[in-house]
Amino acid sequence: MKSIAEIEALIKKVSGLDTKRMYLNDFYHTWKESDDELAAVFAVAEALRGLRENNISSKCFDSGLGISVFRDNSTRTRFSFASACNLLGLEVQDLDEKKSQIAHGETVRETANMISFMADVIGIRDDMYIGKGHAYQVAVSNAVQEGFRDGILEQRPTIVNLQCDIDHPTQTMADMMSVINYFGGVDKLKGKKVAMTWAYSPSYGKPLSVPQGVIGLFTRFGMDVTLAHPEGYDVMPEIEQIAAKQAKASGGSYRKVNTMEEAFEGADIVYPKSWAPFAVMQERTDLVSEGRLDELDALEKKCLEHNAKFKNWECTEEMMARTNQGKALYLHCLPADISGVSCKQGEVASTVFDRYLDPLYKQASYKPYVIAAMIFLSKFQNPSAKLEQLLKRGDSRIL
Amino acid sequence: MKSIAEIEALIKKVSGLDTKRMYLNDFYHTWKESDDELAAVFAVAEALRGLRENNISSKCFDSGLGISVFRDNSTRTRFSFASACNLLGLEVQDLDEKKSQIAHGETVRETANMISFMADVIGIRDDMYIGKGHAYQVAVSNAVQEGFRDGILEQRPTIVNLQCDIDHPTQTMADMMSVINYFGGVDKLKGKKVAMTWAYSPSYGKPLSVPQGVIGLFTRFGMDVTLAHPEGYDVMPEIEQIAAKQAKASGGSYRKVNTMEEAFEGADIVYPKSWAPFAVMQERTDLVSEGRLDELDALEKKCLEHNAKFKNWECTEEMMARTNQGKALYLHCLPADISGVSCKQGEVASTVFDRYLDPLYKQASYKPYVIAAMIFLSKFQNPSAKLEQLLKRGDSRIL
Amino acid sequence: MKSIAEIEALIKKVSGLDTKRMYLNDFYHTWKESDDELAAVFAVAEALRGLRENNISSKCFDSGLGISVFRDNSTRTRFSFASACNLLGLEVQDLDEKKSQIAHGETVRETANMISFMADVIGIRDDMYIGKGHAYQVAVSNAVQEGFRDGILEQRPTIVNLQCDIDHPTQTMADMMSVINYFGGVDKLKGKKVAMTWAYSPSYGKPLSVPQGVIGLFTRFGMDVTLAHPEGYDVMPEIEQIAAKQAKASGGSYRKVNTMEEAFEGADIVYPKSWAPFAVMQERTDLVSEGRLDELDALEKKCLEHNAKFKNWECTEEMMARTNQGKALYLHCLPADISGVSCKQGEVASTVFDRYLDPLYKQASYKPYVIAAMIFLSKFQNPSAKLEQLLKRGDSRIL
Repeated sequence: MKSIAEIEALIKKVSGLDTKRMYLNDFYHTWKESDDELAAVFAVAEALRGLRENNISSKCFDSGLGISVFRDNSTRTRFSFASACNLLGLEVQDLDEKKSQIAHGETVRETANMISFMADVIGIRDDMYIGKGHAYQVAVSNAVQEGFRDGILEQRPTIVNLQCDIDHPTQTMADMMSVINYFGGVDKLKGKKVAMTWAYSPSYGKPLSVPQGVIGLFTRFGMDVTLAHPEGYDVMPEIEQIAAKQAKASGGSYRKVNTMEEAFEGADIVYPKSWAPFAVMQERTDLVSEGRLDELDALEKKCLEHNAKFKNWECTEEMMARTNQGKALYLHCLPADISGVSCKQGEVASTVFDRYLDPLYKQASYKPYVIAAMIFLSKFQNPSAKLEQLLKRGDSRIL
Repeated sequence: MKSIAEIEALIKKVSGLDTKRMYLNDFYHTWKESDDELAAVFAVAEALRGLRENNISSKCFDSGLGISVFRDNSTRTRFSFASACNLLGLEVQDLDEKKSQIAHGETVRETANMISFMADVIGIRDDMYIGKGHAYQVAVSNAVQEGFRDGILEQRPTIVNLQCDIDHPTQTMADMMSVINYFGGVDKLKGKKVAMTWAYSPSYGKPLSVPQGVIGLFTRFGMDVTLAHPEGYDVMPEIEQIAAKQAKASGGSYRKVNTMEEAFEGADIVYPKSWAPFAVMQERTDLVSEGRLDELDALEKKCLEHNAKFKNWECTEEMMARTNQGKALYLHCLPADISGVSCKQGEVASTVFDRYLDPLYKQASYKPYVIAAMIFLSKFQNPSAKLEQLLKRGDSRIL
Repeated sequence: MKSIAEIEALIKKVSGLDTKRMYLNDFYHTWKESDDELAAVFAVAEALRGLRENNISSKCFDSGLGISVFRDNSTRTRFSFASACNLLGLEVQDLDEKKSQIAHGETVRETANMISFMADVIGIRDDMYIGKGHAYQVAVSNAVQEGFRDGILEQRPTIVNLQCDIDHPTQTMADMMSVINYFGGVDKLKGKKVAMTWAYSPSYGKPLSVPQGVIGLFTRFGMDVTLAHPEGYDVMPEIEQIAAKQAKASGGSYRKVNTMEEAFEGADIVYPKSWAPFAVMQERTDLVSEGRLDELDALEKKCLEHNAKFKNWECTEEMMARTNQGKALYLHCLPADISGVSCKQGEVASTVFDRYLDPLYKQASYKPYVIAAMIFLSKFQNPSAKLEQLLKRGDSRIL
């Protein structure tokens, strides 16, 4: 639990960061944000957590809606978004596209404006189809930006990317906050070895946004980041280029290897996680776009058969023993495919998973605060002054 | 954006209107409300909008539920109701009849009381079946009125008609607010020509409540209102009688013609919109009541084939050219069936629709405030005093 | 409506009760709670009702979530839980297991923690399977208790049992509040005769938690409680033992008879209600656990045929005539199977049901306050001081 002095230090830190580009802006991909902007998300998140721990209200909206649009299932992110909105005083209103009167062919522009008359933020998950998810989020953003400009909307709702086809920033920023706290500060990360590796799962079609998001973020902190996956499970090449460039700039490194063993060797942090081959995701996207839905089953079958060739990509005790003193921090965005628990064989041995339950759950616990910080920074031009105001006001969260 | 002086002028206006019959009462059909009552809805809606534009909180409920019952799909009205409730401090709780333990044969009286222990308002959409929607809303109202009288409910929840089989008052009142603002005041409407016309759509079973609501409301402002539709697409005759009577009383006129062309001739406002033939809606209601569900498909097919005879009822550029200087205000409750966008051929040409995007979205933007005003007027005996109180309190909506 | 003096008397009463074990604890089964603890629920519920009747806010959470998990359909309890949360300032977030990304085999521990980062209370209904419902609630409680202990959760969400396989405490406590108010005080209950009887219903698989909950609670007030059901419709024997023991301790009695007639003879309170035979519920649970879902239909058919042998177990006017002066208080948790209304023949004659509409609806009206009191007592170490604080603060619920 943070002391008031620690909260004040965080606020001071925020005041020294350049966040003006975040105001009334959207948060899509971490690599589009400056170092100051990422540092501001971490600091505001910690400050909001500190306020709550000290039973100090961080409500800054008296009314207003936080709209959620989940085009894929979600528990963690759904509850994290709801928690973040509630913490700030926004009421969540979910756009359930099945219950909605969204006409066939209704433009994104129309729907976006129609739901936004009193919306301060729109959180969107759209991670299923390559080339679609981010594009949809941008389309919604453009629509409400125009609506605001043209006097239709009284406020400009900002977009929080709750996972797209390219990045999953609320996840990876929470991952990074847990890493920073685990190692005792961002300055302790230089030279740490990170293994972002593919892992076997009997399920199909998992998005690429987590591995992409991890290499796109972790390479900014001077760490040695290794990506490992079987042949054919490449991530988007442009993200790899970003990762390589960032690693160089931060004094770390980025490389790709072909086995989990190699990646785990001496690692301080491991993130073994399944994803679909890019080509399969692309093919699925094409089949859906072209209405060839009857071919989807065959694609899934083929993909699962292919997956099954790589069952040895499992985070076992033996694999963990290769890491730095056998004690690497195990990360996962959850839910994991745990061998013998949620499936016969999967991403991780149950003994490994169980040993890391506490850090895993703590990792997840940062997400509500990361989302709240993203909203906060997009809504307040002078975020440190607003945090100061909340602290001074000192309203109790619970009576 | 309104100035504080303009808000004060609106509050003064409200204080001069007789709204006492609205207190603890329901809002069903505009023609049952006096001129003062309608004027009060407009003025309170504008005042609430003014407060929000000035970042002044209009929260007047510290706790309390706004129940929504949607027996038909909805996006715009769902989000408008949620926005209105949130603006006033009520939390929306949706009665999803599919997830509910509503026993077969459970009386409306029972369900209505069971959901209302802490409900201040109940918004209902029930527009699918002729003779049913309004009746259901009245049944709910009677149930909670009796519950309140008998000491079961501590407060009397008031009903807001979010669309029934007869009227769609939150829509048409928002339409009218946009017309008033477009033409620069209610006094500018005298003599304006309005064309409420049927339009072709490849979809089936659209309710009659919008055309009925429009002729039932627009005839009260001294305008010349024309209804146009193909043979067989009549609206309820009693609403036409009301329209005719009101037109006469207000110094305007009401007439019916048989072509879109005739209606559009010299019009200042056009509202081309599809609806189902009354007889078909009646037949559908009968089939459902009698459990003859297997005959519904045949009815739909017959109806769509019949519809297709009137594809020339489309709001094209040529049609718009017939209006006053070719510049009539195009209205639609949205979503529209746009030719070449949401369907092959539909209610409106895409070039016409696109030209009116801004006024169309602005038209929709009044709905949350109209709903909030209806709730406000049903909850406060002295609405101007309460508005004054909100203004004086001056709490910020956003910190 | 309570006066301020009456509210102050209730607060004083609460201050004299030992409620410290309720703090940060769960409410599962009434028989696990001490007399003081039950009295505290009643008194806090009445005090909260008094505050609301006097338009005094009882909001004690500035932010925070109330999570609901409904594994069975619900209207009354869903709205009661939502009302209770809203009254105290918590926002309801429903865990819809169908929309969630809960991995096959995901542990309850994981899901429970993932939804609880900002949860102050979790309300759970899980009443369908013998031996499962309570176990699930305890598993969730243990998970969040460990999460709190291990620093994952900043607060310990408390569990409210919204119906399990064993008890339905929010229902029976509301039932008891209505009985206390009906007879004019808890001291008036000594020696009153209660008939908790099975009744015929054409529906299948109703939980045993209501009859069990009623005999498990009503035997604590010095009343003579009779349970009646056809052969084979036994409730859990351990609950009968608890009932017998409690009856003795409170100076009342507990017995079981084989006919509705015998139970109704001279009764002051009757609670005729259908439930499934224990053995059938057990068999259904086994079939589901073993994946033998294709045998469920046959079980249902067999059970309904068996039920139909006991159609004479109906609360008719003749049956009611047997009660004390023919004027016993008729209780039901609703919805009832009303003969000629919701089914051809069911639990109760429509004339009997209609005569008791007001007390029945009032009975239901206590549930939101009972739930709010349970939450209140689990969240505040010194509940009377907090109630006093709310009264002194005197914020208006409605402006």
